[in-house]
Amino acid sequence: MMSMEKTIIKYKKGLKLNDPVLIVGLPGIGNVGKLVAEHLIREFKAERIATVYSPHFPHEVFMMKNGCLRLVSNRFYLIKRKGKQDIVVLTGDAQAISPEGQYEVSHKIVKFFKEKLNGSFIYTIGGYNVSGSVVASPKVFGNATSKKTIADFAKDDVLFGKAHTVIIGAAGLMLAFAKMEKIEGVCLMGESTFFDMDPAAAKAVLQMLTKRLGMKIDTTHMDAMIKKTAKTLKELEKQLSGTAQIPAPGSEGLKPSYIR
Amino acid sequence: MMSMEKTIIKYKKGLKLNDPVLIVGLPGIGNVGKLVAEHLIREFKAERIATVYSPHFPHEVFMMKNGCLRLVSNRFYLIKRKGKQDIVVLTGDAQAISPEGQYEVSHKIVKFFKEKLNGSFIYTIGGYNVSGSVVASPKVFGNATSKKTIADFAKDDVLFGKAHTVIIGAAGLMLAFAKMEKIEGVCLMGESTFFDMDPAAAKAVLQMLTKRLGMKIDTTHMDAMIKKTAKTLKELEKQLSGTAQIPAPGSEGLKPSYIR
Amino acid sequence: MMSMEKTIIKYKKGLKLNDPVLIVGLPGIGNVGKLVAEHLIREFKAERIATVYSPHFPHEVFMMKNGCLRLVSNRFYLIKRKGKQDIVVLTGDAQAISPEGQYEVSHKIVKFFKEKLNGSFIYTIGGYNVSGSVVASPKVFGNATSKKTIADFAKDDVLFGKAHTVIIGAAGLMLAFAKMEKIEGVCLMGESTFFDMDPAAAKAVLQMLTKRLGMKIDTTHMDAMIKKTAKTLKELEKQLSGTAQIPAPGSEGLKPSYIR
Amino acid sequence: MMSMEKTIIKYKKGLKLNDPVLIVGLPGIGNVGKLVAEHLIREFKAERIATVYSPHFPHEVFMMKNGCLRLVSNRFYLIKRKGKQDIVVLTGDAQAISPEGQYEVSHKIVKFFKEKLNGSFIYTIGGYNVSGSVVASPKVFGNATSKKTIADFAKDDVLFGKAHTVIIGAAGLMLAFAKMEKIEGVCLMGESTFFDMDPAAAKAVLQMLTKRLGMKIDTTHMDAMIKKTAKTLKELEKQLSGTAQIPAPGSEGLKPSYIR
Repeated sequence: MMSMEKTIIKYKKGLKLNDPVLIVGLPGIGNVGKLVAEHLIREFKAERIATVYSPHFPHEVFMMKNGCLRLVSNRFYLIKRKGKQDIVVLTGDAQAISPEGQYEVSHKIVKFFKEKLNGSFIYTIGGYNVSGSVVASPKVFGNATSKKTIADFAKDDVLFGKAHTVIIGAAGLMLAFAKMEKIEGVCLMGESTFFDMDPAAAKAVLQMLTKRLGMKIDTTHMDAMIKKTAKTLKELEKQLSGTAQIPAPGSEGLKPSYIR
Repeated sequence: MMSMEKTIIKYKKGLKLNDPVLIVGLPGIGNVGKLVAEHLIREFKAERIATVYSPHFPHEVFMMKNGCLRLVSNRFYLIKRKGKQDIVVLTGDAQAISPEGQYEVSHKIVKFFKEKLNGSFIYTIGGYNVSGSVVASPKVFGNATSKKTIADFAKDDVLFGKAHTVIIGAAGLMLAFAKMEKIEGVCLMGESTFFDMDPAAAKAVLQMLTKRLGMKIDTTHMDAMIKKTAKTLKELEKQLSGTAQIPAPGSEGLKPSYIR
Repeated sequence: MMSMEKTIIKYKKGLKLNDPVLIVGLPGIGNVGKLVAEHLIREFKAERIATVYSPHFPHEVFMMKNGCLRLVSNRFYLIKRKGKQDIVVLTGDAQAISPEGQYEVSHKIVKFFKEKLNGSFIYTIGGYNVSGSVVASPKVFGNATSKKTIADFAKDDVLFGKAHTVIIGAAGLMLAFAKMEKIEGVCLMGESTFFDMDPAAAKAVLQMLTKRLGMKIDTTHMDAMIKKTAKTLKELEKQLSGTAQIPAPGSEGLKPSYIR
Repeated sequence: MMSMEKTIIKYKKGLKLNDPVLIVGLPGIGNVGKLVAEHLIREFKAERIATVYSPHFPHEVFMMKNGCLRLVSNRFYLIKRKGKQDIVVLTGDAQAISPEGQYEVSHKIVKFFKEKLNGSFIYTIGGYNVSGSVVASPKVFGNATSKKTIADFAKDDVLFGKAHTVIIGAAGLMLAFAKMEKIEGVCLMGESTFFDMDPAAAKAVLQMLTKRLGMKIDTTHMDAMIKKTAKTLKELEKQLSGTAQIPAPGSEGLKPSYIR
């Protein structure tokens, strides 16, 4: 019986991947990463190939609609492509709670991707908070493991060196560990205005990412989410007009959502 | 001398159990689990067979009435039955404090039950918070490790797929670990209205559980608790009538009691 | 070079003790334990024989009057007695901060006392909070590892079974571990009224303890502290008379001082 | 692939240092240590020779101006000197977050300095908070590992035994571990009035330190910072004059900055 004192990754044996890239989309600012990951998984009917459990995740199980239960986890999904690099998508319910847990989980995931899946490039997806009013077409900010990768992505309208401060959590740590392990990667961050859910920011990243990877993708589902979010926002503004102190919509989102 | 850096389980050697089931009733919402466990132990004069100590429990000892002291623990009790499956009841003073501790303690308990007691089915008992006024006959909600087990229990009026969100703590984690270890289990949650102590919710689960296991049980003691709780509640309402801001009775119970 | 990832105990080699008893007086309620320990060390000019360092103690060093510095620690001191059991006194700057740290430090200390010093009886000293006004002659409450030890101490006016709830921290944990390791012990708690410093409670325990161990002790120093505390209290009461909301003197002491 | 579960130090192989001294300047009170370290590194164009990563540091990466990213770290820099002791400067983005992390990181750094760099004297630099108005020429307070070192530094106007209470974090712990490992060291603390950034306090320490080590240093850059800070302070006072409740300038600096 395995131990639950450390992070463990259970995976399908005998996988043969074609030089895979990893796309990491976990809960975080505007939930941008998770929205992108879930859209890719849905549209490409990606198959789950591995599951990450960790004592550093919240000590919770989900009550499922069918009456079963499911432990908090991160999950790897595979999109097989003919004659092209395979795509592995990582998403999940939560990020690790403590700093120590963040280091352990992120490092084990990078190690697993490099050593077991033989991958060599990691995309991490996140949101980049900008204050002020909602932007019509969100920009995509980037940070990468090397100047070579920056040069490569700058062609695609990713803005490097324009976003400042820090990347908190897995989206940053995994790239730092990638660099340590001599593999390359880029963090793509959709410009986000503090929503708990920012599908517009997610779509901006999704389009750049799929163009880059030569994938055609139907965005109908995400477009519907964008409309719904915009509508909710307008209603909220209407309700609040005349109020002296207008809370920023979704301002509770200021608490980084990677801690759920 | 053993170490106190990890969770340890001390147990009676030479136990021979007949295909035991485990009933887990620890402190939690409405204290439902603990009330059920303690009632079973009292009524069947169950014998203590194992004790769990952990550095993840609160760093406290209890001052006992006889002047002795007792370290915070979880404890296994045995109800031997002729010609039927034996019943092992787990209860205790507290759940682990940290997420990491919750994973370690719950996993070691499941492992102990499977490997040392040769058990193969786990019941975890909890409360399920519903807001609003007190219910006359609390429902029992359920979540299980497999569809087969759900089908089996749905016959007994356990409501599957009707409760949502998450199960926090041991009642959920132990079933997740049971599933990982290929044993079955169900979480039975009594509908509870935020009391620190909800003996009515506990009785609802107790009745379903004992019927299921073919046990006859005297509920006199629990009925007395229900009456007492109802009386306390009425007095509280009387005192508070006329007050603008009425605190929900036992609203401090909103803080999950598993963290004491 | 040793590691600082775990609690370590550095001790004088070649010690030959005569069946020693351990008296534990660490920071805690009313600082009772520490006051007793420091009084014994001062009056008997006890020699330091061991030092406990732990990553679970606060990450601090003390600036000493002579310009040197000293890491937070717990310290063992020896009182050699001719023809009688030797006495080892443990005191220190702080208790461990986390529950896990409390378990580790307390367990290592008991193990060290049993295995390296060959001791077989532990006294832990603490305060027992009682609300209300200051008591003229504080009682001494006790909890012990066995009925035999209770019977032995009840003769000496220690009140067993009269104090309830829990003992938080080292004074309780060390006795729980003593019991696990088949050695005996008693926790003596001076009745205390929420002072940060309660020398009156400390004196009550000190007198019982020294009588028990057949030691003559000069309490002049402690008597001076009692007078000084009483004087401070009276001045405080004078200043506060007429104030609507009188803070309990030393009410910040409600925060258990073992976490500094 | 190395593990990220413990603190690791990556260093340049084949270094041959001449009896080096270590100067530790990490984030802390008034940021005094970090200002001193960064000034030394800038003025002497010191070369980075080692990097410390730790799961006890914040789980963050920095977005760099060139679009790359950098994991939170502490870093060793070398100042080679002809015919004199070499100087190693340690600075970084943060100190460890938890007490356990502080012990682990500080201990590993001292061990690395002694065993890998063969060093035998450590300077740690910090700020010493004094309340009240800004001082014209900040004093330098000191604490050392031995009376011999105190005597040696007291000649240079370092004030020993005048500062009290505790040194929290790496500046204190590293000297405690130096003492345990039989190497010497001194903590030099610039008198600081609660600024987040106190370049005047830093300059006071810098001058004493460079005089002591026989280094000539250009303080133009630091002088500019002192002027700028003084100007900001005056503007702040002007804005606040007439206000009933004047917040202490930089009073948020009361939160020790080593926890960022």
